[in-house]
Amino acid sequence: MKRIVTLLTDFGTSDYFVAAMKGVILTRNPEVTLIDITHEIKPQDVRAGAFTLSCCYHDFPSGTIHLAVIDPGVGSERRAILVESKHYFFVGPDNGLFSFVFDRDSHACARHVTKSGYFRPNRSATFHGRDLFAPVAACLSLGVPPEKFGALINDPVRLDLADMQMSAHGAIQGSIIHIDRFGNCVTSFQWEKLKEQLNASRFWLQIGKTEITDLVPNYAVGSSTLPFLIIGSAGFIEISVRDGSAAKALGVAAGNRVVIVPG
Amino acid sequence: MKRIVTLLTDFGTSDYFVAAMKGVILTRNPEVTLIDITHEIKPQDVRAGAFTLSCCYHDFPSGTIHLAVIDPGVGSERRAILVESKHYFFVGPDNGLFSFVFDRDSHACARHVTKSGYFRPNRSATFHGRDLFAPVAACLSLGVPPEKFGALINDPVRLDLADMQMSAHGAIQGSIIHIDRFGNCVTSFQWEKLKEQLNASRFWLQIGKTEITDLVPNYAVGSSTLPFLIIGSAGFIEISVRDGSAAKALGVAAGNRVVIVPG
Amino acid sequence: MKRIVTLLTDFGTSDYFVAAMKGVILTRNPEVTLIDITHEIKPQDVRAGAFTLSCCYHDFPSGTIHLAVIDPGVGSERRAILVESKHYFFVGPDNGLFSFVFDRDSHACARHVTKSGYFRPNRSATFHGRDLFAPVAACLSLGVPPEKFGALINDPVRLDLADMQMSAHGAIQGSIIHIDRFGNCVTSFQWEKLKEQLNASRFWLQIGKTEITDLVPNYAVGSSTLPFLIIGSAGFIEISVRDGSAAKALGVAAGNRVVIVPG
Repeated sequence: MKRIVTLLTDFGTSDYFVAAMKGVILTRNPEVTLIDITHEIKPQDVRAGAFTLSCCYHDFPSGTIHLAVIDPGVGSERRAILVESKHYFFVGPDNGLFSFVFDRDSHACARHVTKSGYFRPNRSATFHGRDLFAPVAACLSLGVPPEKFGALINDPVRLDLADMQMSAHGAIQGSIIHIDRFGNCVTSFQWEKLKEQLNASRFWLQIGKTEITDLVPNYAVGSSTLPFLIIGSAGFIEISVRDGSAAKALGVAAGNRVVIVPG
Repeated sequence: MKRIVTLLTDFGTSDYFVAAMKGVILTRNPEVTLIDITHEIKPQDVRAGAFTLSCCYHDFPSGTIHLAVIDPGVGSERRAILVESKHYFFVGPDNGLFSFVFDRDSHACARHVTKSGYFRPNRSATFHGRDLFAPVAACLSLGVPPEKFGALINDPVRLDLADMQMSAHGAIQGSIIHIDRFGNCVTSFQWEKLKEQLNASRFWLQIGKTEITDLVPNYAVGSSTLPFLIIGSAGFIEISVRDGSAAKALGVAAGNRVVIVPG
Repeated sequence: MKRIVTLLTDFGTSDYFVAAMKGVILTRNPEVTLIDITHEIKPQDVRAGAFTLSCCYHDFPSGTIHLAVIDPGVGSERRAILVESKHYFFVGPDNGLFSFVFDRDSHACARHVTKSGYFRPNRSATFHGRDLFAPVAACLSLGVPPEKFGALINDPVRLDLADMQMSAHGAIQGSIIHIDRFGNCVTSFQWEKLKEQLNASRFWLQIGKTEITDLVPNYAVGSSTLPFLIIGSAGFIEISVRDGSAAKALGVAAGNRVVIVPG
């Protein structure tokens, strides 16, 4: 079966960076299928990249190799890693991009990629996406076994994406982790986890001075004048307004604090 | 032969939405070729999506499946449809996105997609692109016959893209339907239709207080100081300026009225 | 082996232009692999397109066909050309887009593409990307030999990308040729060429009133407060700042003059 390599970076699409990575992969394995996840992650925003990848990596066929390069530490001592979960491979810098894999798959393991024989000769100090990560992903797609690339490590860098902190009176603190193209504000509250922790059948969400109480099943039944809550397609609670941008209407940005208040 | 699935959405390319759709399709049919038409349609602008698709769907090989998701009504009662023309399939919401197919192919037929066995299990109320339309397109690409997805309907929603209204003194009213990246202003006047209806060998186009008289065969011979008309590559009359943006020069936006005046 | 066709244009990704080209290619050769280099070149900026292509064409497998359309002269007398280097084919307008091929490969040759039998019937005067260049690239990918498309020419248009002018006191004049997504300012000084011409072991770079002296091996060791120089991944000297945009910090734009001063 044809192997799939997905690409997620903060390289944008106006430079030659992504094309160079694809050329390097295709030179090693012309039969691979390349799929862009996105290249529009805000420069160096590892957390945003991790969130986006966590929302869709599991929609790909088993055996897919997810290549993700948001790499503010390129050229420094930060490690290159290869993560193996039950169904997927992940290749990229060791800075937390793949944290969610360990949250969701307790058998996932990480390797420090050190075998430079798989890298591009004369690799630059500024573009490991092309010179190191792309060739490693290509070799994986050709069937090179993971253990060939380096030794297991037990301390990959981890970030906490699903930020949920219990506080006084049963309230739960969180944050806005992403604003999507439609202006929907994705909170760090995963609905399945929130339900477990919430000690009440009713709740509201507070953001700044705004209290949002309506949790609706789909956009079409949401209020046409007030913001509402909805379980987004990635499983997180989102703040939306109908036919417009909640982020603009409420003046919300990624990183803003939100609180779930029971009652 | 490998089947092609094209994708046109208003999802942008910075979120995980398009990647999720592609993952779902490749999971069902790893051999399909995926081609992006665009994901930069203005959010919820069905008319703009219909125009863009109408300009290029016929350039693809016979048998191509065009998957288009601009879906302000997601989660509501709006129907999901599958349209079959002589050479192509179209899958998406029933809101007019595929109107032009019926204008151009009198034998085209539409089905209400209802057989949920083809959908993704546990489908969300917010993302039918991933949970309903993508799996249906994938199953079509595997050879599932159209009649398996649901019954024929005879009332798909239709929009009038080629807006041409006869008015007093032989003038023809229309509108700007699209501004392209170069600032060319695409009018709703299809050249072939206009020629039939225009009762004169000469005409000018009026937009606001500007009268444009020159119809040129290519950009290189257009005036370097005045706006001119040209038959665009999609067959509509366009307003252009040389080496610049006609939209900026004339202060034109999509939706603005234009008039063809004979004489 | 599957043939690869890359695409580089100034068409953007919000219109139907790129999709139409891909549809035309796939109709002629459904087995080709299509890879976007970029479509975000500034409208009509041939020099920027040439730079971007020059940075990555060589990362693709031997036999790749690079299709590049930045074509302000479409419809005029400008020639269509097919360039053949040792490992690659290039198809596009004759306006300097492929200059670097001749700089790097003295055996490269160019043909004037004239055999209209390979073009799309009824070709437009405004969109040769779809009607002429795409079909020619598709036919090449099917194995049609280059000599079938037209006669050799010895005067293809050439641009000087690596702008390096010796001036008084051993100083070398150049310019900013590109600002990348991260705000790195790519100069016209190719490091390998500069080393040959520079009659000194130390130098600084002057841009406006700013003198930049530090040349660092990777971003991580660069100053956190001052701009520094680095050999970029395309082999040119670049001006960078750490964790930010050098272009913004210094107020630099493409086209600005820079000087290398020895000593």
